[in-house]
Amino acid sequence: SGFTHLDASGAARMVDVSEKRVSTRTATATGRVLLGAEAVAALRGGTVPKGDALAVARIAGIQGAKRTPDLVPLCHPIAVHGVEVDLAVVDEGVDISATVRTADRTGVEMEALTCVMTAALGLVDMVKAIDPGAEVTRVRVEEKTGGRKGHWRRGGGGE
Amino acid sequence: SGFTHLDASGAARMVDVSEKRVSTRTATATGRVLLGAEAVAALRGGTVPKGDALAVARIAGIQGAKRTPDLVPLCHPIAVHGVEVDLAVVDEGVDISATVRTADRTGVEMEALTCVMTAALGLVDMVKAIDPGAEVTRVRVEEKTGGRKGHWRRGGGGE
Amino acid sequence: SGFTHLDASGAARMVDVSEKRVSTRTATATGRVLLGAEAVAALRGGTVPKGDALAVARIAGIQGAKRTPDLVPLCHPIAVHGVEVDLAVVDEGVDISATVRTADRTGVEMEALTCVMTAALGLVDMVKAIDPGAEVTRVRVEEKTGGRKGHWRRGGGGE
Amino acid sequence: SGFTHLDASGAARMVDVSEKRVSTRTATATGRVLLGAEAVAALRGGTVPKGDALAVARIAGIQGAKRTPDLVPLCHPIAVHGVEVDLAVVDEGVDISATVRTADRTGVEMEALTCVMTAALGLVDMVKAIDPGAEVTRVRVEEKTGGRKGHWRRGGGGE
Amino acid sequence: SGFTHLDASGAARMVDVSEKRVSTRTATATGRVLLGAEAVAALRGGTVPKGDALAVARIAGIQGAKRTPDLVPLCHPIAVHGVEVDLAVVDEGVDISATVRTADRTGVEMEALTCVMTAALGLVDMVKAIDPGAEVTRVRVEEKTGGRKGHWRRGGGGE
Amino acid sequence: SGFTHLDASGAARMVDVSEKRVSTRTATATGRVLLGAEAVAALRGGTVPKGDALAVARIAGIQGAKRTPDLVPLCHPIAVHGVEVDLAVVDEGVDISATVRTADRTGVEMEALTCVMTAALGLVDMVKAIDPGAEVTRVRVEEKTGGRKGHWRRGGGGE
Repeated sequence: SGFTHLDASGAARMVDVSEKRVSTRTATATGRVLLGAEAVAALRGGTVPKGDALAVARIAGIQGAKRTPDLVPLCHPIAVHGVEVDLAVVDEGVDISATVRTADRTGVEMEALTCVMTAALGLVDMVKAIDPGAEVTRVRVEEKTGGRKGHWRRGGGGE
Repeated sequence: SGFTHLDASGAARMVDVSEKRVSTRTATATGRVLLGAEAVAALRGGTVPKGDALAVARIAGIQGAKRTPDLVPLCHPIAVHGVEVDLAVVDEGVDISATVRTADRTGVEMEALTCVMTAALGLVDMVKAIDPGAEVTRVRVEEKTGGRKGHWRRGGGGE
Repeated sequence: SGFTHLDASGAARMVDVSEKRVSTRTATATGRVLLGAEAVAALRGGTVPKGDALAVARIAGIQGAKRTPDLVPLCHPIAVHGVEVDLAVVDEGVDISATVRTADRTGVEMEALTCVMTAALGLVDMVKAIDPGAEVTRVRVEEKTGGRKGHWRRGGGGE
Repeated sequence: SGFTHLDASGAARMVDVSEKRVSTRTATATGRVLLGAEAVAALRGGTVPKGDALAVARIAGIQGAKRTPDLVPLCHPIAVHGVEVDLAVVDEGVDISATVRTADRTGVEMEALTCVMTAALGLVDMVKAIDPGAEVTRVRVEEKTGGRKGHWRRGGGGE
Repeated sequence: SGFTHLDASGAARMVDVSEKRVSTRTATATGRVLLGAEAVAALRGGTVPKGDALAVARIAGIQGAKRTPDLVPLCHPIAVHGVEVDLAVVDEGVDISATVRTADRTGVEMEALTCVMTAALGLVDMVKAIDPGAEVTRVRVEEKTGGRKGHWRRGGGGE
Repeated sequence: SGFTHLDASGAARMVDVSEKRVSTRTATATGRVLLGAEAVAALRGGTVPKGDALAVARIAGIQGAKRTPDLVPLCHPIAVHGVEVDLAVVDEGVDISATVRTADRTGVEMEALTCVMTAALGLVDMVKAIDPGAEVTRVRVEEKTGGRKGHWRRGGGGE
């Protein structure tokens, strides 16, 4: 035919969700930033030279959640209606948990994951002069609610 | 004085690098996306329903590297001069490696980490319908060159 | 507990509005750019060397309104449904008035303020070669309608 | 009055659509990138040195559709609910077709056009080392559905 | 090896330019927006209902040039040092010409093309209520200067 | 000639700076957010319900400085090399001071002004539930150094 289609099955497309129902949906994701003892002490003591690392990370996470459709090529732009980011300094580093809420047509697990990842990036940037070996690990969705599939919990399946 | 300063030591600021020397710098970061057998098989077979997951992830990573100063609050805008992203499907999921190059005033380790993370987010989005339990893990800087501190390698120290 | 929480009451979060009702809302904000006589004359005569300063400012304002959630960390992304920017050259400089409309879950006063401020920035940039001392002043919300709290007018309270 | 209004009829504004009805709408746009024989052969053979040009163009198009309100000053931010981009290598170059879907208050023809144009830009960038004379041509809306005006087809009028 | 590499030759990457020399470079691109007689008359008469279409298009073009690395996946972020956009209303529609200047490590032809395309998109958006059949055509690089390859002119080759 | 040029003297363009010298430049801008007694007390007591308002404002300001070329249509993209934002709670509200540094081809006064304005917007958003009448005032450049014109200080002229 003169055409050289890229394999049709492999061609990326943004799936049509215009007929999906608007409903309240939430997603919670978590992750951990592994840090050395010196960085943990600086975070606990509030002595990180670049400034308030936990506040920077939290705000980076909230803003990252809003930037998800810019970062993830096939993600739908979505009305992010609520974001909570919890950062806890533990002996091994910092635990991050993010919950995103919306009333829209698709789930918000990518927004929750992006929130955790940008919070982690923001944190690593703040402490990298103290610990250049920081490692972000175990970033994953823990729980989802709403939408056609209903409740999903990690390790537990749906309902 | 009538002023209530936020604790001066805690106030975030973008460190001045205007007097630092322009020099060639590189950074390599890696990470892994843990996936179930079904998702790995779909990636190997090129049968991911949303499209070419590895191409999407790679491009997401390159674009993510360029968006680093938008995502990481205190990062300097930097002239990203080269980005390579390598994705390898392994039995446990996908290994990601990114190398960023610049001739500028600061290091590019945050760009390399952001590249790996956005590639990972792009990949998770492509396969999440197959594996909602995907996990991003071990995202970290492996090596840096250039700048005042010179060569740094994970686990090995400087030179 | 091994945890060092940032003071919970101080942790920034994006307030959940997913349960709020979609309704028509408007907000009007105003501001003034104080300019010297030479800059005012150039605006009135259409002789600003960098080009049509009022058109640039107006478009900057409209685009700024759309960028509000990118600029204001805890702002919800919102469906901006209408923006009008009015610029009037007065003897003291330029008066800016912006009205933003939406049918969404939260008010648009931040969008109206951002619109005025980006219009002001755009204007200052156009005339700064003529008047490096330009000053933006009295940027504030004048009126809001819609939402749970209903009508609010500056200096007058609600209804 | 002391005021020098810019001609009111010429002052750009974002038209208020807050009272328009949410409905399912689609728009299809097309365009062509004219390329020389060497570039066409490289695309057909998958030997473009910078990488998979068609995948890059397709993803650029999808992301471009989402960036429409950032690029087109008076465009409303809109909930893009589905994007398909089809690229076909023909003897004269590459034909691009994009269909955008939404359930929102305004049409998506600008999103479809932006999708075609950013896909074309992405493609030109990939092959410009082979063919610096690439030309993007005949970018236009082919068909629209939904909204108050209903169905519109190029050259055929409404229904 | 257990690895399933995407075909190495097809993997998109941002080419390293860190070793290229900073030099003054320019690129000029042109394009045309084909419009019906009614739209041309409205542009000539300054009676486009949405506002000053040519000013909006020009500003959209300048801003688009700055957004090139956001839109074109493998483009290097570049220091755009000067942009001129010329719009001329002709009987067939609007002719657009854009010249971009930089002192940086890569050419600016993609910036010039993006400038023309976003100006065209901005213009189409302004007149689409008058002419829904607007067509953007013949968008191409006319001339480049600077860099390793030196002067290039369309149809004429290098020097 | 068949052409209807927009008045050439009025056509906005980004001034060419490619031939300007790279040099160290700084700019300091200030502004004030006028707030009622209740909001001032909440800031002093750290009891703003939405979270740490001063940290959010500071980070918004730093990120805003980096977004200047996105917001101000004719601003050159510039390598922001350092940003400091100082927020002081006073009886009348909050005083903001921002200093931006670069080693680049143009001044950074627009970056300093944008920094103050986005910090102010971020602050107003945090306290608007307490004080919907917040007003941003006296946003202006205080001092510039570097570049061809050298030192400039508000009210004092150059040197």
